[in-house]
Amino acid sequence: MRILILGGDGYLGWPTAMHFARRGHEVHALDNYLRRRAHAEAGTDSLTPILPSLPARAQAFREVTGHGIGVTEGDLLDWDVVERVFREFRPEAIVHYGEMPSAPYSMIDREHAAFTQHNNVIGTLNVLWAMAELTPDAHLVKLGTMGEYGTPNIDIEEGFIEIEHDGRRDTLPYPKMPGSFYHLTKVHDSHNIHFACRIWGLRSTDLNQGVVYGIETDETILDERLVTRFDYDEVFGTALNRFCLQAVIGHPLTAYGKGGQTRGYLNIVDTIQCVELAVSSPPEPGEYRVFNQFTEQFSILELAELVQHAGAEVGIEVRLEHIENPRVEMEEHYYNAKHTKLLDLGLKPHLLSETLIESMFAAIERYRDRVILDHIMPATRWRAVRERARP
Amino acid sequence: MRILILGGDGYLGWPTAMHFARRGHEVHALDNYLRRRAHAEAGTDSLTPILPSLPARAQAFREVTGHGIGVTEGDLLDWDVVERVFREFRPEAIVHYGEMPSAPYSMIDREHAAFTQHNNVIGTLNVLWAMAELTPDAHLVKLGTMGEYGTPNIDIEEGFIEIEHDGRRDTLPYPKMPGSFYHLTKVHDSHNIHFACRIWGLRSTDLNQGVVYGIETDETILDERLVTRFDYDEVFGTALNRFCLQAVIGHPLTAYGKGGQTRGYLNIVDTIQCVELAVSSPPEPGEYRVFNQFTEQFSILELAELVQHAGAEVGIEVRLEHIENPRVEMEEHYYNAKHTKLLDLGLKPHLLSETLIESMFAAIERYRDRVILDHIMPATRWRAVRERARP
Repeated sequence: MRILILGGDGYLGWPTAMHFARRGHEVHALDNYLRRRAHAEAGTDSLTPILPSLPARAQAFREVTGHGIGVTEGDLLDWDVVERVFREFRPEAIVHYGEMPSAPYSMIDREHAAFTQHNNVIGTLNVLWAMAELTPDAHLVKLGTMGEYGTPNIDIEEGFIEIEHDGRRDTLPYPKMPGSFYHLTKVHDSHNIHFACRIWGLRSTDLNQGVVYGIETDETILDERLVTRFDYDEVFGTALNRFCLQAVIGHPLTAYGKGGQTRGYLNIVDTIQCVELAVSSPPEPGEYRVFNQFTEQFSILELAELVQHAGAEVGIEVRLEHIENPRVEMEEHYYNAKHTKLLDLGLKPHLLSETLIESMFAAIERYRDRVILDHIMPATRWRAVRERARP
Repeated sequence: MRILILGGDGYLGWPTAMHFARRGHEVHALDNYLRRRAHAEAGTDSLTPILPSLPARAQAFREVTGHGIGVTEGDLLDWDVVERVFREFRPEAIVHYGEMPSAPYSMIDREHAAFTQHNNVIGTLNVLWAMAELTPDAHLVKLGTMGEYGTPNIDIEEGFIEIEHDGRRDTLPYPKMPGSFYHLTKVHDSHNIHFACRIWGLRSTDLNQGVVYGIETDETILDERLVTRFDYDEVFGTALNRFCLQAVIGHPLTAYGKGGQTRGYLNIVDTIQCVELAVSSPPEPGEYRVFNQFTEQFSILELAELVQHAGAEVGIEVRLEHIENPRVEMEEHYYNAKHTKLLDLGLKPHLLSETLIESMFAAIERYRDRVILDHIMPATRWRAVRERARP
């Protein structure tokens, strides 16, 4: 199958591209190095030493595996690039990771908020138009986030909910209460994609993904040049990955506020498995479906405890520190999100274990001299602009 | 009160600015003439001969009434403009009409879709940041649209719906199924504004407005130089206004498809009344509330029938023609939208009557030599891009 990976240079995009290419698919990866640039500007970097460009990575991958990955260094905001890639490559499936993925980044200031919304919404709009014009039968596998839902007091369904109201009934999009200007872009995308499916008969799977953890996939471990990026800074790092790094370098784990925030989590190898399941079973023309893509729910305190236990196993004493929450979110709340659709398609979860955490410790240990200490603690506060307004 | 009118040169913005100014409020109007430019590009124009600029209109208004209206000719996408207006004028209420308001415009092609989404979403984001930084106690009265809801098979509530689900209960944003890239921008705005209220304690009223009809308000009739614009072309014209014009010039009324499409409608004088009610009773800090702003529901066929009856009264024979629907929408559907919150605040509706339609006939008759016939029939088709893709 011809599979286009948007954001193919990223934490998930690069392993996904390798996975499909190694299984004999024709893979083309597009990226504009937005993440690399944002790191360079902030003075941060991936823990793992990734090769300097997508062509260099594709070249290394070919040397190691004999499989090719086509590459375009370009921006989804540039219609000429998008149009050319769709016209020349004619993808049958588009796996779309190509967005600014950071909540804190989107909350830094007005410019970062506006950039994030513009970049994600218009980039995805360009993809939809390219599909409608050039590959109307293709399947868009779009990475959304569980963060679109927020933390409602009822069970979270997969994208749609049947509502009975005053004696009538309808199945409607699940109400959304996202928690950052970044998360909002995913909600905007979901509405735009749903509309494009309704009016143009496009087909799309919106993967509302939980927080991904892990550092290794079947392909990244083949050769050090094939590693994927690993972020632990306050802007791009996520909870469990950062906790593991903090444990290794002897910093306390930083829980934001009470630490009762509960979310869905999954291993990076399950991200790839889920994307492959979605690609292999496309929806009907006109169908917009949503899968909640995670395997387990944890609160921050539960994650911290797991990391502490794993640390004890390998002789690391891990402390936990509650710091002031830079975000605006509930720190204790009901949370129960359905996630059966991918299991029904055959997902075999790799559940979180102390063994996995210990293997993450080992992988992080290998690169510990690359750790930049300055940018681990949160500096971006959701209420900052408002606090400045009233002294 | 200091009231900032964004989009103050528009069909609704200009009468709103005059209304508040004449009642002694300090009014500042901002506009970038987007609508005027779009008309110039398309070769269309307002039926009514509006003065050539906002300063000219404010000058005429001062001559007629003795009241001033401050003016900024500028773009909400230009942060320097937004920041300066908020810093210098320090609005206590912001009435935000300043968006590209046309569904067909947003469906013309990729460029128009992307422009509409960028313009509306980022412009409103700039307004939210300006409020958070400079006037955090101000009240944003944002014009949304009833089109955000689509046509669900259950009653439409005002912004939020209480859902009981698997034995638990929450009140959540009402699910949205908008019908164009323009309508989608209003949904995106609603999510962004709701978020800004939650994290920054801003206060906002989102007016989900029905289709507005009418040509005259208490101020526009004071002097011909104070008329508001009146659009009847396929891009900016709306159902009843266009029907009245078609009746006057002897064209058949054009119903899209079966004509069973039902929507909420209101008189332009009630738009102004509703906005004034919202401004007079601001929500609490942090509160985001939604009012469904319309007074009556009609199907297209019911509107057509009213226009035919009114025509018969004044001796015009009005024909009805069903034309192929350029949109993708249900042409027969359940529709029952709640609209009690503005009535509770004291709204006294001006219901649609044959007399009102006859007075619209007369107003249109006055300018019938200005009618441009070429652009009344719909040319923008929702599925066009998709039809081109597969011959």
